[in-house]
Amino acid sequence: MYLEDAKNIESKAVNAPGAVNAFKQVLVGPLQGWDGWVMRQFTLGKSGCTPRHSHSWPHINFVVKGTGTLLLQGEEREIGPECAAYIPGGAVHQFKNTGESELSFICIVPEEGEF
Amino acid sequence: MYLEDAKNIESKAVNAPGAVNAFKQVLVGPLQGWDGWVMRQFTLGKSGCTPRHSHSWPHINFVVKGTGTLLLQGEEREIGPECAAYIPGGAVHQFKNTGESELSFICIVPEEGEF
Repeated sequence: MYLEDAKNIESKAVNAPGAVNAFKQVLVGPLQGWDGWVMRQFTLGKSGCTPRHSHSWPHINFVVKGTGTLLLQGEEREIGPECAAYIPGGAVHQFKNTGESELSFICIVPEEGEF
Repeated sequence: MYLEDAKNIESKAVNAPGAVNAFKQVLVGPLQGWDGWVMRQFTLGKSGCTPRHSHSWPHINFVVKGTGTLLLQGEEREIGPECAAYIPGGAVHQFKNTGESELSFICIVPEEGEF
């Protein structure tokens, strides 16, 4: 049983190569009871982005606020609040904040994607 | 690979006993590529609630907008945007909208909880 406001959860800068003005919070994972998966929240400041990359694990996304683009299959598609996505393992992808305010989104990965 | 705005996803009234002014959308699940799990979005209209109930599967929640309460361990705890929760199988729980606007939240369950 776990309930926490993300505003009270530590936000860490994403240091991966290619990440710009990007921050991550771990919301719910094995430590909170969810075996095998981790729900994180990413926040991109103005002009921020996640790396353009791929990895073996899939992820599941949901845009909380802000506007931007999601690179999928070589195409930058516009995203905004309540957009949901499934990105399979091996697919090149990148989130960019193209708006004036923060872009934040949920990103759920199998444990191997987080630890 | 899947990307969709939840505004374009069908919203169905929740007909379970005890549900009031409650609607559900299926955002990402096995049909979109996520084997074993389903991410849904629930929306509670004014004075709406989900059933006060328990079930064998856990769920993982994230509040998107609005304000309300989440019954956990017999206590109604206040929730608002960006609250994250893990509710283990067997725990009695209930979401209530106590605000003037809609309360919406993500609810992730294993497939057995949806199908």
